[in-house]
Amino acid sequence: MSISAGTTLRLLRERKPLVHQITNYVVMNETANATLALGALPVMAHAREEVEEMVTLADALVLNIGTLAVRYLVGAGATRYRTDTARRILEQVKVSVLRGNQGEVATLVGVDAEVRGVESVGAGSERAEIARAAARKLDLVASVTGPVDQVSDGERVLAVANGHELLASVTGTGCMSSAITGCFLAAKRDAPLEAAAEALASFGVAAEDAARGAAGPGSFHVALYDALAGLDPDTLDSRTRIS
Amino acid sequence: MSISAGTTLRLLRERKPLVHQITNYVVMNETANATLALGALPVMAHAREEVEEMVTLADALVLNIGTLAVRYLVGAGATRYRTDTARRILEQVKVSVLRGNQGEVATLVGVDAEVRGVESVGAGSERAEIARAAARKLDLVASVTGPVDQVSDGERVLAVANGHELLASVTGTGCMSSAITGCFLAAKRDAPLEAAAEALASFGVAAEDAARGAAGPGSFHVALYDALAGLDPDTLDSRTRIS
Amino acid sequence: MSISAGTTLRLLRERKPLVHQITNYVVMNETANATLALGALPVMAHAREEVEEMVTLADALVLNIGTLAVRYLVGAGATRYRTDTARRILEQVKVSVLRGNQGEVATLVGVDAEVRGVESVGAGSERAEIARAAARKLDLVASVTGPVDQVSDGERVLAVANGHELLASVTGTGCMSSAITGCFLAAKRDAPLEAAAEALASFGVAAEDAARGAAGPGSFHVALYDALAGLDPDTLDSRTRIS
Repeated sequence: MSISAGTTLRLLRERKPLVHQITNYVVMNETANATLALGALPVMAHAREEVEEMVTLADALVLNIGTLAVRYLVGAGATRYRTDTARRILEQVKVSVLRGNQGEVATLVGVDAEVRGVESVGAGSERAEIARAAARKLDLVASVTGPVDQVSDGERVLAVANGHELLASVTGTGCMSSAITGCFLAAKRDAPLEAAAEALASFGVAAEDAARGAAGPGSFHVALYDALAGLDPDTLDSRTRIS
Repeated sequence: MSISAGTTLRLLRERKPLVHQITNYVVMNETANATLALGALPVMAHAREEVEEMVTLADALVLNIGTLAVRYLVGAGATRYRTDTARRILEQVKVSVLRGNQGEVATLVGVDAEVRGVESVGAGSERAEIARAAARKLDLVASVTGPVDQVSDGERVLAVANGHELLASVTGTGCMSSAITGCFLAAKRDAPLEAAAEALASFGVAAEDAARGAAGPGSFHVALYDALAGLDPDTLDSRTRIS
Repeated sequence: MSISAGTTLRLLRERKPLVHQITNYVVMNETANATLALGALPVMAHAREEVEEMVTLADALVLNIGTLAVRYLVGAGATRYRTDTARRILEQVKVSVLRGNQGEVATLVGVDAEVRGVESVGAGSERAEIARAAARKLDLVASVTGPVDQVSDGERVLAVANGHELLASVTGTGCMSSAITGCFLAAKRDAPLEAAAEALASFGVAAEDAARGAAGPGSFHVALYDALAGLDPDTLDSRTRIS
């Protein structure tokens, strides 16, 4: 399956997939608005009575367990409770793509101690190894975000070099990248590796656009929705840096 | 009772009514900020222990059951659980105004199948009929929002042609219109039909102002609060399109 | 201990303290983003299973009980339930700084009836007395915010004259000031009186910066995060008005 974020985005905007998101309240609004801005339809249903019904209507489901991702203390791995929850979900649900940062994904595959604290070091060769190991161990596509994102199906590894450091100054941008991954998966179901990489590259291009002219984290955050809505399928592929 | 959004807005800003909102966490911040920007005082109290006490202090109560309104899949009607909840509230509480989109209100009055999917068609004659039917059946004022809003007390129907399509690109704008309806009701208790129409017209004028110069959904969202705060009671009536 | 918001801010940005916030969902995103913008690391953990573990990792803990602070009807004092909750926390937890507005703090120290409704009157001599009384009665630093903030340890009282009236037009700004108080405390543990005053002064300076060029509450809100991130430790002390 070839990689073309522009093609997938065009398809996504035509089909307007319904992306069901079970996420925390802190970032729910952010991920819903990012989904809408991109061109898909978000739906947030949590009540036990309605989740089952909603899932059958939706084109993709995003499960988000972190309450707040910060640079060194993250969703999975931050406390035993979250790690256990993540592991239980992975055992009981058929997950296509797992999105997390290096520390989160490392914790889930049991290489916690070695990798903490190296988050921002290098171009991501360690991150690539963690992505590959997680993909093999958990039988899914692992999407490990960082300065350079690494996405792997256990065999191949795609590196995504788009993005901007201002993303780290706003809460919920990691959760937004999960939501956007769900949107791209809904539009390209048969190729989760490519879809996950295209999603991160597209989000990164939007962040690059938003950073231009932003005066700080507040105006960057606002411009990020404008930039997601303004992504142009015709020129997107010339800007994504997937290798 | 005559229609004058400007007069009601002036009164509202003088009296600063307390508008109690029991709503979902996704849009709570949005509706609180919209209420503040308009000039009323929002209060969000959910705990069982305090709701009763708070209700006696407030000038209006807004009950919001949808977690997220999207264009084709909405609060009431989206799942049986929500429809049942809405119906139970309507049976047990004396509701003055019911605000929803066409699909939501149609579901509540039992004409679900016929109306789904026609959301954006035409100037709203079907929406007007649903508003009238809901108002009669449920003995309240039904406020059905869409490209042209339709508000009815069962006899008369008021059409409101203000608004902007960017409203659909931001989560919580439907919920904001409910909150603003509560604000106008608090300032014009004796005329719920007129108050509901004036509220939608005022919100629509603010959306029109916000859309000017907006670069996308993010900057539109921000400008919407500025525009609500900037609504001018002296000129508002010349801009509302209520017929 | 001398007062220097610039020195504390510089230290805070070097150490990046982890500030654990147990707060309501309405403003959680706001306080997390304010914390990030200032230069500290927010973490929001509420689940009973993980709170204990998280508290041991964090440099400061912010407990926020109000769901929404409005001008005349506030967290503590608004309902008996909230007042009781606040009192129970104060009895069972060793609190360093209590941040609230005049009505909230007055209610907690039992002088409710006399002070309601005088919120905006004068330069705050009554507020200063309430701060001093609360500090003595509860054995902590009381930080009473208003047009002029008053911070007391029971002996001394520091008045902080920074800020802007647009702060009252956006939800969660009181909660943000609590979060920022937590950030400054984490960087200046041994001097809670000075830290609390420096925090309010710094937040006030940011609000003054944000108000310049803001077109209303929406754009002010966005600019507030930019301004927090843009606070300059080198010039901050020349702008704070602490006496």
